[in-house]
Amino acid sequence: MDIRAEIGTRTEQINEILAAWLPKAEGEQRTVIEAMNYSFLAGGKRLRPMLMQETYRLFGGRSRVIEPFMAAIEMIHTYSLVHDDLPAMDNDEYRRGKKTTHVVYGEAMAILAGDGLLTYAFETAANAFDIEPQNIGIGHSMRVLARKAGIYGMVGGQTVDVESEDSKDMTKERLDFIYRLKTSALIEASMLIGAILAGATQSEQKIVEEVAGKVGLAFQIQDDILDVTGTMEVLGKPIGSDEKNHKMTYVAYEGLEKAKEDVAALSGQAIAQMNSLVVKNEFLTELLRYLIAREK
Amino acid sequence: MDIRAEIGTRTEQINEILAAWLPKAEGEQRTVIEAMNYSFLAGGKRLRPMLMQETYRLFGGRSRVIEPFMAAIEMIHTYSLVHDDLPAMDNDEYRRGKKTTHVVYGEAMAILAGDGLLTYAFETAANAFDIEPQNIGIGHSMRVLARKAGIYGMVGGQTVDVESEDSKDMTKERLDFIYRLKTSALIEASMLIGAILAGATQSEQKIVEEVAGKVGLAFQIQDDILDVTGTMEVLGKPIGSDEKNHKMTYVAYEGLEKAKEDVAALSGQAIAQMNSLVVKNEFLTELLRYLIAREK
Repeated sequence: MDIRAEIGTRTEQINEILAAWLPKAEGEQRTVIEAMNYSFLAGGKRLRPMLMQETYRLFGGRSRVIEPFMAAIEMIHTYSLVHDDLPAMDNDEYRRGKKTTHVVYGEAMAILAGDGLLTYAFETAANAFDIEPQNIGIGHSMRVLARKAGIYGMVGGQTVDVESEDSKDMTKERLDFIYRLKTSALIEASMLIGAILAGATQSEQKIVEEVAGKVGLAFQIQDDILDVTGTMEVLGKPIGSDEKNHKMTYVAYEGLEKAKEDVAALSGQAIAQMNSLVVKNEFLTELLRYLIAREK
Repeated sequence: MDIRAEIGTRTEQINEILAAWLPKAEGEQRTVIEAMNYSFLAGGKRLRPMLMQETYRLFGGRSRVIEPFMAAIEMIHTYSLVHDDLPAMDNDEYRRGKKTTHVVYGEAMAILAGDGLLTYAFETAANAFDIEPQNIGIGHSMRVLARKAGIYGMVGGQTVDVESEDSKDMTKERLDFIYRLKTSALIEASMLIGAILAGATQSEQKIVEEVAGKVGLAFQIQDDILDVTGTMEVLGKPIGSDEKNHKMTYVAYEGLEKAKEDVAALSGQAIAQMNSLVVKNEFLTELLRYLIAREK
């Protein structure tokens, strides 16, 4: 399997699904919708919806009920980037080689676009009730989506990350907390919702959540590694932006070699756990492997 | 009925219900939870949860399923105030006589506290699935909550409000759009969710939504009137803050007398429509009347 080509094909398929769930930029409030869609369509490999869809397929899911949740998780991911880039947060002017939302639309509109995306994620997900009214996993999935995105997930991780800037008293526990919540939480939500909506058993859900946690952690550490070793051309953003923001990263804390070793170890554990499941999805396994070893 | 005393008693009862749904300020991310609870507990009459609960009772609702939604609507209202007060938005330093969230916790934490409250609202509401698993109105209520809070509701209204600052080309349509979405939308969500969860018919839901729309509009116009005619002591915030922000208000556009007439007309229509329902709730009728004629 040429995994990069395969990911490219699937990204295009997913982009078509996602586009169908975007709000139309019309009405008196069209500016905020334009800003939402600008940030949503700024690129990205759509990994979270891809992981969700493939986990859903892994457990035999075959309906369109997964689609509104695929759109919802990507909206939440996008809102987090929009707010994260704000002047009061990371103050980033570029992302994926394009100007960030507040640079194009102004700070007030960027705040509202983030709020709009976050809220529209839940509005979109709620469409699942119409598609498969009898699926008792939908309510559960709504809760997982909110929990993993909120103070016990991504927002919680962001909080500690913000507080840790310029901080000298970083500990390994604190660093792990940030990474586990800031990045892993949404990866966990993606895969867990895929499993829940397909009717996976509780023990299968537990394995999926653990795999996702390790993949998310490895993914974020790899991101830090690339921030140090990558190039502007490949990454589409200035190199060393973490250092610019005085962020304590895993690489700075543990050193580059240890970081690379940890990525490899987490990766191995995640794949092994994945293979312990009775059900199989070759593409998903390859995708997880690729994500962790990626070069951009 | 001494409506002011009665509102005071019910506000206390509602505060007890709401307190039970707040997250505990503990864990590595405790700062954001503290900031959320600071803004949530900064006061207010809890009108949205009160309207929700009373509409639920109006249609015979008697279960605790309404409680997570009462907390959720107040969390969404609170997040909107936190983000609205930010320097990039209205840049307000005081609200209800207390320092605003970004003044106390800093701008980054205020953004995160707003995001946290909005997300936690949906996480909280999702608890309703456990309380009354057979209630088919819960999924519908989740969607109403998201829609009325988002780009087709409050965020949409905020967007046009932000764009209209310093604007000379305000029209009556635009002004109505702002008022209908910025304030009415959450009042509509409150009363509509109360009706849905209690099992009201579709035609009853329609009437409730219309009543709520008028009450919300009248409530917001009254707010503008008080901004001009009130006192710092009564309002707990600087007088004329709309003018400070160069906001085009209903009062500035239509004049004080016309604004007062419109409040009275909307009020009359709302009460009449309310009385057209077969079911009755005397307190709710008095509450609607009071809200519109209030002096702070």
